[in-house]
This record gives sequence, structure tokens and C-alpha cells, in this order.
Amino acid sequence: MTKKASIGVTGLAVMGRNLARNLARHGHTVALHNRSEQRTRELAEQFGSEGDFIPAYSAREFVNALERPRQVVVMVKAGAPTDAVIDEFAELLEPGDVIVDAGNAHFADTRRREAALRERGLHFVGTGVSGGEEGALHGPSIMPGGSKESYESLGPLLEDIAAKVDGTPCCAHIGPDGAGHFVKMVHNGIEYADMQLIAESFDLLRGALGYEPARIAEIFRTWNTGRLDSYLIEITAEVLAHTDAATGKPFVDVVLDQAEQKGTGRWTVQIGLDLGIPITGIAEATFARSLSGHANLRAATKGLGGPSRTPLSGSEAERFADDVEQALYASKVVAYAQGFNQIQAGSAEYGWNVDLGSVASLWRGGCIIRAKFLDDIRAAFEAGPELPTLLTSGDFRKAVEDAQDAWRSVVSTAVRLGIPTPGFSTALAYYDGLRADRLPAALVQGQRDYFGAHTYRRVDGEGSFHTEWATEARAERPA
Amino acid sequence: MTKKASIGVTGLAVMGRNLARNLARHGHTVALHNRSEQRTRELAEQFGSEGDFIPAYSAREFVNALERPRQVVVMVKAGAPTDAVIDEFAELLEPGDVIVDAGNAHFADTRRREAALRERGLHFVGTGVSGGEEGALHGPSIMPGGSKESYESLGPLLEDIAAKVDGTPCCAHIGPDGAGHFVKMVHNGIEYADMQLIAESFDLLRGALGYEPARIAEIFRTWNTGRLDSYLIEITAEVLAHTDAATGKPFVDVVLDQAEQKGTGRWTVQIGLDLGIPITGIAEATFARSLSGHANLRAATKGLGGPSRTPLSGSEAERFADDVEQALYASKVVAYAQGFNQIQAGSAEYGWNVDLGSVASLWRGGCIIRAKFLDDIRAAFEAGPELPTLLTSGDFRKAVEDAQDAWRSVVSTAVRLGIPTPGFSTALAYYDGLRADRLPAALVQGQRDYFGAHTYRRVDGEGSFHTEWATEARAERPA
Repeated sequence: MTKKASIGVTGLAVMGRNLARNLARHGHTVALHNRSEQRTRELAEQFGSEGDFIPAYSAREFVNALERPRQVVVMVKAGAPTDAVIDEFAELLEPGDVIVDAGNAHFADTRRREAALRERGLHFVGTGVSGGEEGALHGPSIMPGGSKESYESLGPLLEDIAAKVDGTPCCAHIGPDGAGHFVKMVHNGIEYADMQLIAESFDLLRGALGYEPARIAEIFRTWNTGRLDSYLIEITAEVLAHTDAATGKPFVDVVLDQAEQKGTGRWTVQIGLDLGIPITGIAEATFARSLSGHANLRAATKGLGGPSRTPLSGSEAERFADDVEQALYASKVVAYAQGFNQIQAGSAEYGWNVDLGSVASLWRGGCIIRAKFLDDIRAAFEAGPELPTLLTSGDFRKAVEDAQDAWRSVVSTAVRLGIPTPGFSTALAYYDGLRADRLPAALVQGQRDYFGAHTYRRVDGEGSFHTEWATEARAERPA
Repeated sequence: MTKKASIGVTGLAVMGRNLARNLARHGHTVALHNRSEQRTRELAEQFGSEGDFIPAYSAREFVNALERPRQVVVMVKAGAPTDAVIDEFAELLEPGDVIVDAGNAHFADTRRREAALRERGLHFVGTGVSGGEEGALHGPSIMPGGSKESYESLGPLLEDIAAKVDGTPCCAHIGPDGAGHFVKMVHNGIEYADMQLIAESFDLLRGALGYEPARIAEIFRTWNTGRLDSYLIEITAEVLAHTDAATGKPFVDVVLDQAEQKGTGRWTVQIGLDLGIPITGIAEATFARSLSGHANLRAATKGLGGPSRTPLSGSEAERFADDVEQALYASKVVAYAQGFNQIQAGSAEYGWNVDLGSVASLWRGGCIIRAKFLDDIRAAFEAGPELPTLLTSGDFRKAVEDAQDAWRSVVSTAVRLGIPTPGFSTALAYYDGLRADRLPAALVQGQRDYFGAHTYRRVDGEGSFHTEWATEARAERPA
């Protein structure tokens, strides 16, 4: 065998298979390997006409089929299976070779693996890949972490197969070790928040106006021609417009209203807590999914008293859909602002030096949260890489300030009618919390000093203070 | 030395010292030990008249001073120092002896330590102790985990020194291994939520009515004579009534409005996420503290546009304080309901068989969240140990249903005036989410099936389904 492959893929379930085909379709020779030979053979037979594959039936054969530096994409289940495959190949590879984990690993695992392989002279690239099966085949959004050196050989291949927006590939080097998987995690967290906000918008339009799903689909279609233009809005319209074949009912009405999750939203919130970044939009979205799944609890509480849901009427009804659009846009800006702040904090904590503008740029296409509005975010961070929050960027600031009357009105209506909008509410509370001159956190500090002698700082001087709460004549003293 | 001690305390910083004194004051002979001898000597000298102490100046001397089974209370810093002390004493103790960790350990560490010591025939008791320094001396609330056998010897001593309510000690065996520290963690999480709700109430009364802190202190004092009667409301009134000596200003106005935290709120939310329990009140409270501490971010966003804060007037103003009381009560019930659900879930996950009524009972005194209302919670769980949520217990249900008009009105007012109330808002969204006939989670499932083929369930049949979204004529099929 004289011709060698420029990259290899091991783990040929649907994601691995589609990535391999995407690489081959772009003119790269791809070595194939899978634990069971059947999948390797099938892929080579079924899609052999799409490009150059070199099927390999042992790990050693696979490694021998690769050009140097060898680049091995591992696409197996996260956790122990990934560790096992990495260990197997680390034995066979040589200094300078590159192992790529394209699965949904926790960034802390990626950091651990990168450090261990670096010791052995190997490059380890943990990369986020978003876009699902279709994206993997036709152009995903790709978020590779790892050494700069690894990106020199791997980057051009990944940029080839990534989605393109205005000719720019939706792929860029994110930063060292766990940076790629961290950014992918936050992507998924933002995805949870965005989906929750869209779901609340639907619920509001239905609950407050009494519209049928098909009519609400039309509203989403209209929104999709404006600043909300995005993949999630587009497919929401499709889902809402769909009629269930078996019953003739709106599809959304025959689906069980218990949302499931695979864990990346949860990770994002847990890490946000560790970093001290208030990512309340992602947290509420994650908890909203949990709540929906507690069937017994919901059955037990179904009869709890609430207000009657009299649909809106008159001028209130007329402007309501537009108000919801504004509330959705403003809440979305908050959710994305929080997510980007989490990336900023992770980058600072781990010394990754992540370019936020580049992240926004590569999310513009290929991934689930792809949206026109991400180009505005890209522009905002390119103009101000040190932006403390998207909310202070000129255009976003103006848009949110202009939206706030409608936003407040929508949340009030939801509260009055008893329609749960945890996502809209927390976004507005965050906005009002940020811009507050004074927060009642001062009272919390007073309470903490009272019961636990935890001390407090003052507005008018440096240092820590404690008040002698137990004595009659209270005195403040430096602590 | 003929007389032996029934218990020993090692680690004589303020918490350990006060626990030792409390034990001695109750007639127990207490062996004392500390890494540096000075503290041991001082304690014996200064407080020797309070009871019987046996100062020991080496670990072996300390262990020899104890009756069997030996009971060693470890009161050192959480983490590595605790492990080091446990290791040291495990070497010196014999099967049947008991090591007690009375610090704020993570329950997962307690589970690990308990398992390791059980292997060696030793009992390990991780116990929550709440009430701060004063509580440790005069009667804390105590939450011991560990084997039933360990509680036979240790329980009577702990019950002696615990706070008493109506003659009942605020101490009971919580369950095996990490159960005690888990329950203490949730206690602290609830404490975060409760403090945040109180802080929001203050902020609302001030922002919407323009009242000065001293006047608001009076309102809290009145509330403290009713169903909100609790330690936190009591000290809030004290803090708000206090005038800063140096400036003559209200104390709360000279305190820097950046709340700090020591991490148990964060743990609670992270574990809530792992267990899939929506503890949104604790999450929002934890994030509100983080937000308040982001000084640079707040400085950058201070000018963001908001509505003008025109104080309420007329009848709206007259009933506002009462409305806030109702909103506070209802939100508090939600926060506690969520916390108890987390304990229920932890108990099921780890097989602890925690008695929720007993937990509520021992929180009635000694601890930071002690409150009259915990006796109602005790009664609710004693009447219905399998209660799916406090919100369906007769009295709580009625109280919250009766409060909801005021609750909705207060949240609307906050939203209209731009006063951030993440705690009130999330509690109401949770209430409305629970009682909803249908949640828009159905749409989320539709979206997930569309972009990721994650499948969905139906309202009218068993099984998992997938829709062929890509094709023109969409079809639903079992997945």
C-alpha cells in the first residue's frame, strides 16, 4: 500500500461515519477503523465512490495507513470508552502525532487527557463539533482545543469540512487543552436557554391570545425574516406547522410535554457556579426541563389554584405578538451575554486566551444556535474584545433598552395570567440587577455579619468590618 | 488518671472550643486536644470551672483519656486538614470507636471517609452543626449521619447539647454515611434562598414606597409576630434599625452591596442539578450573590436604561407592605418545598431513608433558618411522609393559593419599576410551572427531535417516536 491517508477516523457510528465521508468528499484520503469490522467494510463499500478511503481492520494497520504526523479522530462514547481507545492508540503512535476527541467530553476530562498525552509527546485535541448528524456530513461548526502546533496540521482539514459563512469557515483554534470542549459546553448551555425562551414565547402566544399552533408558526416565520433569523426559530415554525398524521391534531399537542436532556446544560450551570458567573438563563432552562419531567409531582400539583387565563383582547392583544418578539430578543441577548461571560471567565481561569469574536463567528453556521444575530455578536467582540458584557455594546444596548417596555409588559402579562416564564423573568431580573445603583446584597452582608461574624466591607473605606451585634451599644470595628 | 472522658474534641478553634464547653456544661467529661498545646491549655484554664475537662497534649494521651467506645469530635478545616486528622486518629483507635466530623464537609467526602473507616471497623459520623459560634455554645441544631450503632453512644450527648424546642432536642439521627452533611448542605442552600427573598422584600419596600430602613425595620418587626416569625426576620429588623456610629447613616447604607459566600449554596445547586431537582430559589439566590460581587461588570452597566422608580401612592401603596408579606411567605414556601424535595431525592438516590418531618423538627431551633413555620412543615411531613411537595399539604396549599393575587401583583410592580426580584419571580414561575396543564416542553421535544433525532414520547401511547422532518411528506414512526 503506497498511498497514505492524511487523517483517520476510529469509531464509525453515525457521527464518525459522517465526519469521515465529509473529509473524503473534500478530497482527503481517510483511513477507517471500527471495533467491529462490519461497520468499516460497510462504509467503504457504501460510500467508496465519494472519495478515497483506506479501510483498516486492526489498530496497527490503521496507524500504519496514516501520513505523519498521524491524525486520529476518535469518535466513540464519552467517558471510559474514550479513555480506552485513547490508551490503545497512544501505545501505537509516535511523538508529534495527534489524537482528536470529537465527542462531547467534559472539558476537565480533556484537560486531564491532554496533560497525560503531552507527557508522552503526543498532541491531544479535544474538539467540539456541533450540528448533529447532518452537520457532520454537510458542514458542522467545529471548536478544536489543543496546542497551536496540532492546529497547523489539523486545522486546514477541519476548516475544509466545516460550514462556511460568507466564505469564512465555522472553525478556528479555540485555545489550549480543554478550551474547545469548554466552548462547546457553553454552546449547548446557550442552546438550552434559547430553546426555553422560544418555548415560553409559544406558550405566551397560545395562552394569552388563544392562537392555534399553525397560526403561531406563521408568527415565527415572520420573526425569522428579522433580527431573530436563526435555525432554532426556523425549525420551531416547522414543528408548530406540522400536523400529526395519525390524529390530525397539531403535532405539538400530541407530544408528551416532558423535556429530556443529555447533561451538557447541567455541566454548564455547574461550571458557571464554580466560576461565579451568573448564567441564570441556562440554569432556569435546565431546571425547566427537569420540572417538566417530574410527572408524579406535576400530577399531584395540577389542581393548584391560579388565575383564569382570559385571552387578551383589543389593543393589548394587537400588540402582544410584537411585544413577545421584543421580550424574546432582549432575553436572548441576556442569555448570550451570560454565556459569553462564562467563556471569558473560563478563559481567564485556565489561561486559554479565547477570542470571543472568533467564537461568535464560528457559531454563525453549522451549529444548532446558528443565527444572523451571531454576526452582530462577532462584530461587537471584534470592535471591543474586552467588552465586559454584550449589553454594553452599542447596538445591543440600544436594542435592549428599546425593548424593555415591551419586555416588562410581557412578563407582567405572564405573571397575571399564570403562564410560567422562568426564562424571560430571570433575564429581566438580571438586567435590572446589573443596572441597579444599589443591591440589597448590603442587607445580606449585614445578616451574615450578624449571625456568623462573616464581616462586611464599607462604601466609604477600605478593610473588613464587624459590628458587635450582641451588645446594647453596637460598635463597628475593623475585623 | 482514673476518671475517663465520655467524649473528646480535637481542634479547639472557636467552634471546637464552644462545642467542648457546651458538652462540659452538660455534665460530660471532655478530653481536649489541639495541634498547638497553647489552645488546649487556655481552654482548660479559662473555662475549667464550667465542667470537667481532661487536657491532653498528644494524640495518644487524648485517645487514652477516653472511655470506650471512644468518641472523637474532629473540628478542623474541611478538606485535607480533616483527612490528615482522621488518618492520625484512625491509627490510634480500635474497632467500635467513633470519629465525628462536625465541620462543613461535602457529603461526597463524608461518604468516602465513612466507607474507608468502616473497612477498619471504625464508625464515622459526618454531622452538620448549625447556629454559628453562639449556637455551638448555647445549643445548635445538629444533623448527624452515620451508622445507627454510632448514634446509640453519641446521640444522647449530642441531644444534650442541642437546642430544644418544646422540650424536643434539635438533633436526630439523619441516616447513613453522608446523610447528615447532605441535609446540612441543603439547610445552607435554603438559608441562601430565604435571605435573598428577605433582601428583595426590603428592596421592594424601599424602592416602591420610598421608606427608610428604620421604617422597614418596623414592618419586619411586625411580620415577626406572625407566620413569618423566624430568626432571619428578627435579625433583619435589627440590622435595618441599626444606625452606623461613624456616619449617623442607616447601617445598611454604608455596607458595600456585594454579597459574599462560602460555597455551600453552590454545592447545593450543583447537587440539585445532578439529582434533577429544580431548586430554582437556591440557584437564583446563589447567582444573585455572584452578580452583586461583579464590581466591574456592575460599574460598566450602571447606566443601562430602566423605567423611572416613581413610588407607589394611594391604595396601591397602602396595601403594598401586606402584599409583600404574602409574596414573601408564598416564595418562602416554594423555596423550602424545593429544598425538601432535594433531600427526598438525595435520600432515595443514596438509600438514606431520611425522615423529612424529623429534619423540619430539628431545624425549628438552634440553626440560622429556625422559624415558627418549620413546625408547620414538621406537622405536614408527619401527617404525610410521602407528600410529593409541601405545596400540596393542606395548610400550605391554602396559604399559597390565598397569597397568589398579592404575589402576582408584587412581581408585576417589581417588573414595572425595574426592581430586580429574581427570587420572587422564580418562585412564582415554579408554582405556575408545576400547576400547568401543559408545558411548552412539548415544543422543546419537537425541536430536539428535529435537529438531533432525539425522539419524543406521545400523549396517546407508549414508546419513542421520531418524525422524518427532512422529507416533504413527514411521517411519525416508532424510534
